[in-house]
Amino acid sequence: MVTWNNLDTLASFQDLAKVDPVDLVSVMSGENGANRVKTYSAPMAEGLAFNYATKQVDADVLEALAKLAKEAQLTEKYAALYNGEVINTGEKRLVLHQLTRGQLGEDVVADGVNKRDFYVGQQKKVADFANKVHAGEITNEAGEKFTTVVQIGIGGSDLGPRAIYLALENWAKKNDLLKMEAKFISNVDPDDAAAVLNSIDVAHSLFIVVSKSGTTLETLTNEAFVKDALNNLGLDVSKHMLAVTSETSPLAKSDDYLAAFFMDDYIGGRFSSCSSVGGAVLSLAFGPEVFADFLDGAAEEDKLAMNEDILQNPDMLDALIGVYERNILGYPATAVLPYSQALNRFPAHLQQLDMESNGKSVNRFGEPVDYVTGPIIFGEPGTNGQHSFYQLLHQGTDIVPLQFVGFKNSQIGTDVVIEGSTSQKKLCANVAAQIIAFACGKDDENRNKKFDGGRPSSIIIGEDLNPKSLGALLAHFENKIMYQGFLWNVNSFDQEGVQLGKVLAKRVLAHETDGALKELSDLLEI
Amino acid sequence: MVTWNNLDTLASFQDLAKVDPVDLVSVMSGENGANRVKTYSAPMAEGLAFNYATKQVDADVLEALAKLAKEAQLTEKYAALYNGEVINTGEKRLVLHQLTRGQLGEDVVADGVNKRDFYVGQQKKVADFANKVHAGEITNEAGEKFTTVVQIGIGGSDLGPRAIYLALENWAKKNDLLKMEAKFISNVDPDDAAAVLNSIDVAHSLFIVVSKSGTTLETLTNEAFVKDALNNLGLDVSKHMLAVTSETSPLAKSDDYLAAFFMDDYIGGRFSSCSSVGGAVLSLAFGPEVFADFLDGAAEEDKLAMNEDILQNPDMLDALIGVYERNILGYPATAVLPYSQALNRFPAHLQQLDMESNGKSVNRFGEPVDYVTGPIIFGEPGTNGQHSFYQLLHQGTDIVPLQFVGFKNSQIGTDVVIEGSTSQKKLCANVAAQIIAFACGKDDENRNKKFDGGRPSSIIIGEDLNPKSLGALLAHFENKIMYQGFLWNVNSFDQEGVQLGKVLAKRVLAHETDGALKELSDLLEI
Repeated sequence: MVTWNNLDTLASFQDLAKVDPVDLVSVMSGENGANRVKTYSAPMAEGLAFNYATKQVDADVLEALAKLAKEAQLTEKYAALYNGEVINTGEKRLVLHQLTRGQLGEDVVADGVNKRDFYVGQQKKVADFANKVHAGEITNEAGEKFTTVVQIGIGGSDLGPRAIYLALENWAKKNDLLKMEAKFISNVDPDDAAAVLNSIDVAHSLFIVVSKSGTTLETLTNEAFVKDALNNLGLDVSKHMLAVTSETSPLAKSDDYLAAFFMDDYIGGRFSSCSSVGGAVLSLAFGPEVFADFLDGAAEEDKLAMNEDILQNPDMLDALIGVYERNILGYPATAVLPYSQALNRFPAHLQQLDMESNGKSVNRFGEPVDYVTGPIIFGEPGTNGQHSFYQLLHQGTDIVPLQFVGFKNSQIGTDVVIEGSTSQKKLCANVAAQIIAFACGKDDENRNKKFDGGRPSSIIIGEDLNPKSLGALLAHFENKIMYQGFLWNVNSFDQEGVQLGKVLAKRVLAHETDGALKELSDLLEI
Repeated sequence: MVTWNNLDTLASFQDLAKVDPVDLVSVMSGENGANRVKTYSAPMAEGLAFNYATKQVDADVLEALAKLAKEAQLTEKYAALYNGEVINTGEKRLVLHQLTRGQLGEDVVADGVNKRDFYVGQQKKVADFANKVHAGEITNEAGEKFTTVVQIGIGGSDLGPRAIYLALENWAKKNDLLKMEAKFISNVDPDDAAAVLNSIDVAHSLFIVVSKSGTTLETLTNEAFVKDALNNLGLDVSKHMLAVTSETSPLAKSDDYLAAFFMDDYIGGRFSSCSSVGGAVLSLAFGPEVFADFLDGAAEEDKLAMNEDILQNPDMLDALIGVYERNILGYPATAVLPYSQALNRFPAHLQQLDMESNGKSVNRFGEPVDYVTGPIIFGEPGTNGQHSFYQLLHQGTDIVPLQFVGFKNSQIGTDVVIEGSTSQKKLCANVAAQIIAFACGKDDENRNKKFDGGRPSSIIIGEDLNPKSLGALLAHFENKIMYQGFLWNVNSFDQEGVQLGKVLAKRVLAHETDGALKELSDLLEI
């Protein structure tokens, strides 16, 4: 039986605060630093490794974190989640995104359905459909093959699938696996849809409308925008449009779609990349086998996340260190810095995943908490960021913990040797150098050229960025965020904070406003 | 004569801390709120307006900020800068980016040259070259017109020009002004250059190598990468490559380039969008007249920034409010939220502009300061962000001030009416709704659905996003950051914090490391 307690009521949290903080500059010097790099590493799925040598932890801190994990019943809470308890208490829902990629515990039956069977069934339906499109069995009205797939969705229906597509696009091209080019329309700004439509061959495009509820303002608006364009070209809308939605949504009942694939209320939007939300567009773009590999990578990481030993559980360990940094050391933000151009939109996805899940001020019972919760998450790929905001990270007045990601090999494999090294080696040399520069700093008589060091980071290292390792990487962060939610005792699976804006926007459009909102609407000539 | 003092030594700053803080929920309600929206607005150039009704200011706070502006001698310091004093004291350089777009004060003569003449001369040289390319007078070896321009640069040579190109690409298409498509290669990750080269017609592409020093690792590596590709296609490198650099750099002396355009040490990389760094690629993409309009918009805003009355100086006012939020109210970050898909990379540019300029711990004399300086800057376009990280902004435990930007009209003009409103109206309705939701909140018995409000924001409102208004927008932020640097008494124009990483990366590549850095390099198989 698990019990849900606020972080600051746990004795182990109070004890953690009493452990001597680690001086990174000191522990990372000499042989000790080298030993930390060798030993402070937790294996992840698909050959990835989470190296935390440059985090402000040592044997004492790690022991305290292990006690915290135990007292907070982290593995038990994870088990409750994957065994189908109502973890999303606010919305009274199960939380089943891990079940889209594997069976971790007991069969989960809800609404009279075995949910694993349901998710696998939808994957098969998507795979069959994608195979037929690729084989030319499903075509446009003129009997011609579709070349492009366009996802119409926003938030969780956009950021994850888009980041994953971009992460694998060049890999797929290189391996002759890019079946269709994918594009994304998200913003209600009409320039978004117009620009995408201007850039594609609409007559050979499939459009996927993605909205769990079937009521998302932006997505329905953009669907209408696209239907308009199809009609203007004299094309049959129902031959070009697919839906990904819940079985109870208005979209599920429409005849406007060539096919509909389903998800359900037990998968939150930001956790839906492994459901049909990601599955449809990614299977069409890369083929179902690639998507299946991606799911396998995620499933392997989910298994690792069950481990009670925090040193063998990189997702939980990352979560614990993050809470230590946020609630004991007092750092306000975390930067995500993948040294991989292909991961250029991965930080934007993690930004939603993390900030929407844990940016809460009340615990799961609706009571205000007396400690800070989710940090600000931001990031850009390295080495680009080095020439941008790293100045503040190195010498600014706030300390920002850093989450690096790096791979030994490039995806495309085209490279050039300059001054004795390839670009890929230069990329890796830069991430190694940054980690040590942040941790160890450098003294200088000129205070302007001095680096205090003591700036913590971790790095996830892999061989290659491919579907399996990408799946593991995504699951790592999903599980980290889940564990942090457990520690902060918040409900990571609702998002009540997005509601008020929606309500007020409707009022503005209905011209039912007064006071400041009316004045603002007038200023914007709405 | 200006004197440079730390913020916390100013009597007006101590007084500011004593002013009663403003309760946004209270002041924004009813008629008072409506009045604030009407009156708390400072006109900007090109028809833009900076509305700060939902900032935590009132007459008392504004009066205290005006005193602070005066005691800190903000307009005098700006005058010293544009009149050519050595404001970048660390590197002993003038700071002349405003001079690329207009003459605000005295003639500035440096190194025996009138610098305004020099910048205008380079603009003319770029314009002549671009006109000849567009007219087919400068062609590839086969005598065919160039269709694509590729900028090879990183940091300031990438983020600003890229953000501006993307901001105007659809506007230019709509107005038949897109002369050449532009692409950008920045990252040393070989997959960046390889993917761009795979996506273009290399034989009809011009490549601009942009590096002030001519020694930037990433840029020289990517130049070699592109030269390799040109050679492999049997193309004459010197017919396809341009340089933007300083006159003293190694690139300036090379015969490898079809043309070279110059900037100088008085323009920092992140402030270089208005120099040849932005001028070459943007003039080639859109034509020199469009770039000239962009400069005119920036120049108009620069003039406004001279105003001693903070209520008539939106750049200074924005800076002052930001410092109040950071140093008195204690907020750690600022989010930049343009309700315009075209501005989707503008936040990334501002992130560099702000964090690299003011992410400092020492004052301009190299002495540690006892107060926080530049905040974390992040952001994504609305309405996308609403479905991502706004949850934390509304209900998280930290307050994050918000910088909105919105335009009444879309760029492309293709739109659709759904439920009685266009997409553009929906976009505007959303930004208005968010501003009020953040400021005023909403009570609810269910604490999970309650919004405390009190979350400050400002909005810059314009008619259209076009070259002139974009220029004004960019200058606004450049000037805001300059004024904040004056207030914090830091040197906003150097970036010593980026040096250590570069030095260590070279050591890694030369295999001259030991301890932790050697272990890390081994892990990454460098």
